[in-house]
Amino acid sequence: MHHPLTFRLATREDIPAIVALLLDDHLGVSRERSEDLSCYYSAFDRLCEDPNNELVVVETDGQVIGTLQLTIIPGLTRRGATRAQIEGVRVARSHRKEGVGSKLMAWTTERARSRRCSLIQLTTDNSRPEAHRFYERLGYVASHVGMKCDISR
Amino acid sequence: MHHPLTFRLATREDIPAIVALLLDDHLGVSRERSEDLSCYYSAFDRLCEDPNNELVVVETDGQVIGTLQLTIIPGLTRRGATRAQIEGVRVARSHRKEGVGSKLMAWTTERARSRRCSLIQLTTDNSRPEAHRFYERLGYVASHVGMKCDISR
Repeated sequence: MHHPLTFRLATREDIPAIVALLLDDHLGVSRERSEDLSCYYSAFDRLCEDPNNELVVVETDGQVIGTLQLTIIPGLTRRGATRAQIEGVRVARSHRKEGVGSKLMAWTTERARSRRCSLIQLTTDNSRPEAHRFYERLGYVASHVGMKCDISR
Repeated sequence: MHHPLTFRLATREDIPAIVALLLDDHLGVSRERSEDLSCYYSAFDRLCEDPNNELVVVETDGQVIGTLQLTIIPGLTRRGATRAQIEGVRVARSHRKEGVGSKLMAWTTERARSRRCSLIQLTTDNSRPEAHRFYERLGYVASHVGMKCDISR
């Protein structure tokens, strides 16, 4: 028996639940913090100022059980294609293996299409083989190497 | 004898030169077109409407010899870190092995820092091993798998 899922854009009231999802992850646990959420509220304000960024949540029974960020990127390459990019995909541990992630991706794909995107791209950490298989089942092709450089120093 | 390089944001007048750079590439040759540039001009207009996207060019002797796109992405993960993302890096074949790419990346990194980014990310096609080595020399770590899904159908 699965309860219905609601997909919508996040509000400020969702931030604690979203941070809890980000923390409940083998990589997130060392990268995030829950003692002081002020950095997340500031980041949410910056995100909301940009119409090309959307923070998405999925809820059931009034509880946020999944999240991702959608970024719309206009650009010249591929004959002026607009891309969608997905970051920070998380589903609550208590609701995995129920198809929540697939439905969240499907909802976001339609949203990207409505923003005239012809391509969706994302990267997943090398330490998430189950995520790679998940995206491949959805039609994603592992065509690229994802590289990052810390410039905070 | 190297002539001085000038780094700046692209203008509409640079579009033909930028498209020529995009075409002069083993992947770009099948993805781009030069007969009708209208799709590139429209894409440039969309890009300019977004203050979080910048199309960068490098020129010497009044000629555009390199380009990349910088996208600033606010987000919640990594304690509300703002990321910079780089796409569509190209250097003219006639000016390779002169350090133009490294200088273009260095200029863009400072620009990303001035926009308060703590991380720069990019993906490179699996078929560009020399690009992977180039970015690794600059301090990039190949920590992720880059996946794409065509949603144009």
